[in-house]
Amino acid sequence: MSASGAFSIDQLMELAGLACAQTLATVYKKETHPRVLVCCGPGNQGGDGLVAARHLGMFGYLPTVWMPKPGNKDIYKRLQTQCVNMKIPIIPPSNETEPLRKALADADVILDAIFGFSFTPPVRAPFDSALPLITESKLPIVSVDIPSGWDVERGNAEGVGLNPDVLVSLTAPKEGAREFKGQHFLGGRFVPKTLEEKFNLNLPQYPGIDQIVELPSTELENTQKL
Amino acid sequence: MSASGAFSIDQLMELAGLACAQTLATVYKKETHPRVLVCCGPGNQGGDGLVAARHLGMFGYLPTVWMPKPGNKDIYKRLQTQCVNMKIPIIPPSNETEPLRKALADADVILDAIFGFSFTPPVRAPFDSALPLITESKLPIVSVDIPSGWDVERGNAEGVGLNPDVLVSLTAPKEGAREFKGQHFLGGRFVPKTLEEKFNLNLPQYPGIDQIVELPSTELENTQKL
Repeated sequence: MSASGAFSIDQLMELAGLACAQTLATVYKKETHPRVLVCCGPGNQGGDGLVAARHLGMFGYLPTVWMPKPGNKDIYKRLQTQCVNMKIPIIPPSNETEPLRKALADADVILDAIFGFSFTPPVRAPFDSALPLITESKLPIVSVDIPSGWDVERGNAEGVGLNPDVLVSLTAPKEGAREFKGQHFLGGRFVPKTLEEKFNLNLPQYPGIDQIVELPSTELENTQKL
Repeated sequence: MSASGAFSIDQLMELAGLACAQTLATVYKKETHPRVLVCCGPGNQGGDGLVAARHLGMFGYLPTVWMPKPGNKDIYKRLQTQCVNMKIPIIPPSNETEPLRKALADADVILDAIFGFSFTPPVRAPFDSALPLITESKLPIVSVDIPSGWDVERGNAEGVGLNPDVLVSLTAPKEGAREFKGQHFLGGRFVPKTLEEKFNLNLPQYPGIDQIVELPSTELENTQKL
């Protein structure tokens, strides 16, 4: 998420991360999948992951944060402190694969907040070895906005991306998600009317007061270039 | 809401305002009560109101903002711009009662975000004439955190406060809300575990992924001094 339309990054990340946590909790119940490994990239996507981890803690899950290269922005430090205050373990930053391997062995489900819509190949260390490890774990994966390693327009053309079971698109489904065949949600219920009209977005209707909406497979035809 | 525990004011206000909007929408459906007059005070309480107004717009309500004395902080300007981008009318600041009188005549329900837990009497202009006008309108009122005009510890002892139908307490019910007899909700699901344990808060359980929880009347016995 990037700040826009008078919104601060704090606001957008809070609503985006909440939507990610609610999506995971809707599909994977805490009774069967309590241990969530939240994998965070170095950018804003990772920030969404930190917010989601905190809300998952609020929901009664047992999240663990893997964020091997935390960004320098103050907001990541604050979001990490908020996780610590929720007693959420944060795996110390490292370029080694062993901490991730161990964390995967202790997890029931993965929240993939590694790369977002601004990702361009190649996948750099330590994530180049992390993506295959995550895939090999065979754990269910919930990806944020676009599966990590996918191109925002061309999808998983490079074949290096994750293959999540669940995707939570933020604000609008991305062109690259067109080939995604799993369970698809939309979150980020903060697109102002003026913007929706300006770009003729034709976004799906959220039910009632919900912050997420599950998209029927036909909705994939309505992907937007955002 | 004030910033604490590494949270920014933007984050806390976003979650608080969302909870207020969700509470109003839970009790008063948009089919019967579409026109919400969001009455905002000059402080953080008013900021919660602006966030709630935006989310109510997202939910399909037709909110109008009355904020006669907007605070100078940058965040109030940004939150107002976000409302404008949602095509939410904002009544121009004024010390006159006429704009409020007219707005009340065009409303179905009121969100009272005028004074919060830091309010101390007396009620100053233009709110001294506004509170009686709001009461006389006989419209249903949803109050944020503590009914406007009530003392956070002594309640409506002065008798100058509003008498809302619904109250949404934030983070924890306040001592002064003990005598409130209406429908009572709790919002602000962001109290860190470390804080909850430190102050032995014993907060009610929120259901699932919800951001609000309705309190049974017996919960009123568990008010906290926060």
